[in-house]
Amino acid sequence: MVEMGLNAVWIMVAAVLVLLMQGGFILLETGSTRMKNAGHVAGKTIFTVGLISLVYWAVGYGFAFGGDAGEGLNKILGLGNFFFDPSISAAEGDAYPSSVFFVFQLAFAAVSMSIAWGGFAERAKLSVYLIFTLFFGSVIYPVIAHWIWGGGWLAEDGSQDYAGSTVVHLTGAMAAFAATILLKPRIGKYNKDGSANEILGHNQVFTSLSVLLLWVGWFGFNAGSALTIGDGFFAYVAFTTQLGAAGGAVAALLISWLVKGKADIGVTLNGALAGLVAITASCAYVEPWAAVVIGLIAGVLVFFSQLFFEKIRVDDPIAALSVHGAAGVWGTLANGFFATPELAEKVGVGQAGLFYGGGGHQLWVQFLSVVVCGAFAFAASFIVLWVIKQIMGLRVTEEQEIVGLDLSEHGSYGYPEALKKSNTTTAL
Amino acid sequence: MVEMGLNAVWIMVAAVLVLLMQGGFILLETGSTRMKNAGHVAGKTIFTVGLISLVYWAVGYGFAFGGDAGEGLNKILGLGNFFFDPSISAAEGDAYPSSVFFVFQLAFAAVSMSIAWGGFAERAKLSVYLIFTLFFGSVIYPVIAHWIWGGGWLAEDGSQDYAGSTVVHLTGAMAAFAATILLKPRIGKYNKDGSANEILGHNQVFTSLSVLLLWVGWFGFNAGSALTIGDGFFAYVAFTTQLGAAGGAVAALLISWLVKGKADIGVTLNGALAGLVAITASCAYVEPWAAVVIGLIAGVLVFFSQLFFEKIRVDDPIAALSVHGAAGVWGTLANGFFATPELAEKVGVGQAGLFYGGGGHQLWVQFLSVVVCGAFAFAASFIVLWVIKQIMGLRVTEEQEIVGLDLSEHGSYGYPEALKKSNTTTAL
Amino acid sequence: MVEMGLNAVWIMVAAVLVLLMQGGFILLETGSTRMKNAGHVAGKTIFTVGLISLVYWAVGYGFAFGGDAGEGLNKILGLGNFFFDPSISAAEGDAYPSSVFFVFQLAFAAVSMSIAWGGFAERAKLSVYLIFTLFFGSVIYPVIAHWIWGGGWLAEDGSQDYAGSTVVHLTGAMAAFAATILLKPRIGKYNKDGSANEILGHNQVFTSLSVLLLWVGWFGFNAGSALTIGDGFFAYVAFTTQLGAAGGAVAALLISWLVKGKADIGVTLNGALAGLVAITASCAYVEPWAAVVIGLIAGVLVFFSQLFFEKIRVDDPIAALSVHGAAGVWGTLANGFFATPELAEKVGVGQAGLFYGGGGHQLWVQFLSVVVCGAFAFAASFIVLWVIKQIMGLRVTEEQEIVGLDLSEHGSYGYPEALKKSNTTTAL
Repeated sequence: MVEMGLNAVWIMVAAVLVLLMQGGFILLETGSTRMKNAGHVAGKTIFTVGLISLVYWAVGYGFAFGGDAGEGLNKILGLGNFFFDPSISAAEGDAYPSSVFFVFQLAFAAVSMSIAWGGFAERAKLSVYLIFTLFFGSVIYPVIAHWIWGGGWLAEDGSQDYAGSTVVHLTGAMAAFAATILLKPRIGKYNKDGSANEILGHNQVFTSLSVLLLWVGWFGFNAGSALTIGDGFFAYVAFTTQLGAAGGAVAALLISWLVKGKADIGVTLNGALAGLVAITASCAYVEPWAAVVIGLIAGVLVFFSQLFFEKIRVDDPIAALSVHGAAGVWGTLANGFFATPELAEKVGVGQAGLFYGGGGHQLWVQFLSVVVCGAFAFAASFIVLWVIKQIMGLRVTEEQEIVGLDLSEHGSYGYPEALKKSNTTTAL
Repeated sequence: MVEMGLNAVWIMVAAVLVLLMQGGFILLETGSTRMKNAGHVAGKTIFTVGLISLVYWAVGYGFAFGGDAGEGLNKILGLGNFFFDPSISAAEGDAYPSSVFFVFQLAFAAVSMSIAWGGFAERAKLSVYLIFTLFFGSVIYPVIAHWIWGGGWLAEDGSQDYAGSTVVHLTGAMAAFAATILLKPRIGKYNKDGSANEILGHNQVFTSLSVLLLWVGWFGFNAGSALTIGDGFFAYVAFTTQLGAAGGAVAALLISWLVKGKADIGVTLNGALAGLVAITASCAYVEPWAAVVIGLIAGVLVFFSQLFFEKIRVDDPIAALSVHGAAGVWGTLANGFFATPELAEKVGVGQAGLFYGGGGHQLWVQFLSVVVCGAFAFAASFIVLWVIKQIMGLRVTEEQEIVGLDLSEHGSYGYPEALKKSNTTTAL
Repeated sequence: MVEMGLNAVWIMVAAVLVLLMQGGFILLETGSTRMKNAGHVAGKTIFTVGLISLVYWAVGYGFAFGGDAGEGLNKILGLGNFFFDPSISAAEGDAYPSSVFFVFQLAFAAVSMSIAWGGFAERAKLSVYLIFTLFFGSVIYPVIAHWIWGGGWLAEDGSQDYAGSTVVHLTGAMAAFAATILLKPRIGKYNKDGSANEILGHNQVFTSLSVLLLWVGWFGFNAGSALTIGDGFFAYVAFTTQLGAAGGAVAALLISWLVKGKADIGVTLNGALAGLVAITASCAYVEPWAAVVIGLIAGVLVFFSQLFFEKIRVDDPIAALSVHGAAGVWGTLANGFFATPELAEKVGVGQAGLFYGGGGHQLWVQFLSVVVCGAFAFAASFIVLWVIKQIMGLRVTEEQEIVGLDLSEHGSYGYPEALKKSNTTTAL
């Protein structure tokens, strides 16, 4: 019973850390966007975290982890435990109380959702956030969580995604991708000749602090995914996580310095996040040097990925596609190269990667996971948003967008003293 | 000894989370008030947290938990353990070291105090904060904590207040109420015809982030109040806490959208907090569906409560009376309706509520707790503040209030670059 | 194995809390400096935390804790465990996994580094941060950590520095000192007649919140340094930590009120930090009343120390020399006065202080630690920075400094909307 309690305390701490990441998203999203939208962007996070909690409790958790894993439909979708009503304490032999597992998993769903919001920023209607949360929290995210973590068909294939480079990050990024495509770029982002303007966020202190909060929260995300303390393996996971994050931050700053001649703050911050996203799948499967390499590559990747998406006219204000999408794909694939036989056996999922004598099998499984999950998340999100668009529209009017969503969606500015002074200069 | 250690680690984590809530209060209070007072509002939190730590150590803890519970005076007031000097480690058989229990309880006292400051905001003198902290931390809060948690007379009656909807939140709100009455509304809040003006806070990113920090900290607040890990019941408490918060956020946004035609950010944020405040008393006593209902009602309640207090000309800049007062009362009473027999027995306090065949008894006990504790907290705070008012005055001068408390109380602005540019437009 | 797991969970939580302190430094440094440098100041923290993680992993940890402590060179410098590759889990009999010890120690190194940045603020080139991190993380900090914590010669002497008043805080402050001397004061800080101008920071909400985050993180810092849970002594450490912090905050506000006639917010905040810095060495060695006294003295000390450094024309924008230097020295010496025989025996390092019948021996050892470590940290930092200065210069050009480091080092403002409006008034 003491071991159960120890696991429970750690999962609880981890759940709290993952919820704290929402503070990171509040700061990341507001800092990366303009003052006129700050109250809207920040406030909708609290609202949607509330809403997804209810939706995931009522439906989503049941699809992700409900019923018994195994035959038939259960490889595709969990069924059971809707309106989740856990026993009030753990039974003899339980590894942890089911209530703490629920809170932990809910926090993951909320992170994936907040990643998605990156693609909606500065132009989607508030009501779209509300409706999309219902679908994302009840079906889209739970299906993928079930496939890889809930005993679904990719779990059976040995897909290695320790803490969710694919399940959480790629899923959120694909939803963001669908949203950016359907919403179209913000006013002023692209010129008629196709060239892009930089729409700067308004507060780099917020974005820097956001990265720190996310970084800190990631110890709950990754090391919490161990779920049991046992022989202390969760600490190794935290160790590689730190190395991956570090690699991402360092590589991104250096590549931006090298290529652009200026050490870009935003790129550095995204590099740290990309390192974290990439190491998320692989943190339990790789050696320390590999964690560093995975992070370094993620930092370089995020820089070029941002340039690429800007070029193809995808307006992604928070860089969700690069940070969570590209780095999420890379992190998942990385297992196919760097997973060691010892660690794959330790975790008990899949096998060694290409560089450790495992041949191409694991890389293929990882590739399959990325493609299938990415495609499902994109398609499902696209369909939901497309239908919303036909019925009620996704985007605020041009006038509302120019005046800002604080005023148009909520009736007052998030920074009333700063904006009333100079409402013309900040209008765009 | 390992079980003791496990409890100790969890209480320590919980204490840290509850202290982190002060970061929430810094952001909530500054974000809800004007730029000219921001440094004062933020800085006084650090100072008063420091001061109450010394006061509670020297006196308050002794009144709340000192001596042996039992007969005579001890039902009214603890006596003993002044200038608390705990043994340096736990003895065989202790559930946890007394030092960690102290830090946890101190953090609760500091939360109650920071709630009270809502009623002082933007017009009380700095010296008033100092003096009121002395009384609040040494006597007012400790007396109520003793009655319900320290083996006092309400504990004997079976009053159910798991983590302090009454002890912490209602107490703080009643102190805020006394302060707003004695201080009178801020300049410009009410017109001569009695109608109210909205004095907007200056930063909704701060208030949104504050809610997230408070939400996260609340897991320490509620689930920490289990004090022991045992069979993992603390996780169930965290689970219902999340549902209550979610209900509050969702209901508040929807009701404001419905009634005002605009989805008000501030109301949504207060709704999340109201859900948390309400579930604080009941988190260990109710089923999941009831937690959702308690939260939803709290979210609606906070909206109308804010309108009510504005109407009766109570100027409460941080909405302490609605968020912590009204929702605190509701949360305490909710046990009288929703407490299940199984959970009341599990916790070992009181009995089932009205909806679970317990009749009106528990509801009556809950009602009594609210009335008695609320009345005591209000009266004691009112007397202290009334005496201060007679001796030295509570409020800064009209000129000081207009120029802002940063300048008048501390000699420089909290945002010197933003305010020196435009010191006229922000004067009011 | 459960005890190992319990220790591991606590050290992990503590490591996360210490990493969270970087969020405190982001806010402390940006809030204490001007808007034109905010993005640079905040962003470089993320970058340098990333960089020191790699450097400390590759080299620093090996010098601090590598190889076997003992004879010969090992009293001066650890050797071994470079490119640290811990076993993936704890072995039977281990107190905790080595991976979690690494993450914890790395977080300490990063704190010391972030303290040092106080002396570089608002005028050092970005490239200097990069290069200095390499030396500080690989050699300067690890040498001192080895001497006191890694089985080095000061450890053998019984130097009492429980969580690093000297190792972490004084070391960082001495590096800051070397930097301020070589960089010279900021433009506009001193007039030709030698009198000083106050260069106000731009955001006291940030600095207040920073203190709260640092305060919260300090529970990981101090109580985490227990490393094992055992009989719950770590909780006693947390208890004295809270008292020290409280004493510092209260004393600093009162002394500034008394001397200057205004209750200075900045001084109060620095007082809380000084209390925390001072109690860091002594938290495990002193009685509660002594913790309060140590904090109170630190709060007074930091006030006069800031005046002193301003007078001798040392421009220290974040007050690192006072908060971490002066208070670090005081805290280390305090053991020589207040350490009790019981607690010195409990911790197993050194002996009782002057006020507890220990005579002057421990005071002498503490004095020696301060002098030797302070001198080494200063000299090593000075040499590294002096060489950098000769080769490439430390400081941005006068024009770059006036326009701000956001624009000159990174190509865009951290607050683009606030600064484009009024780029002349904020230029200085």
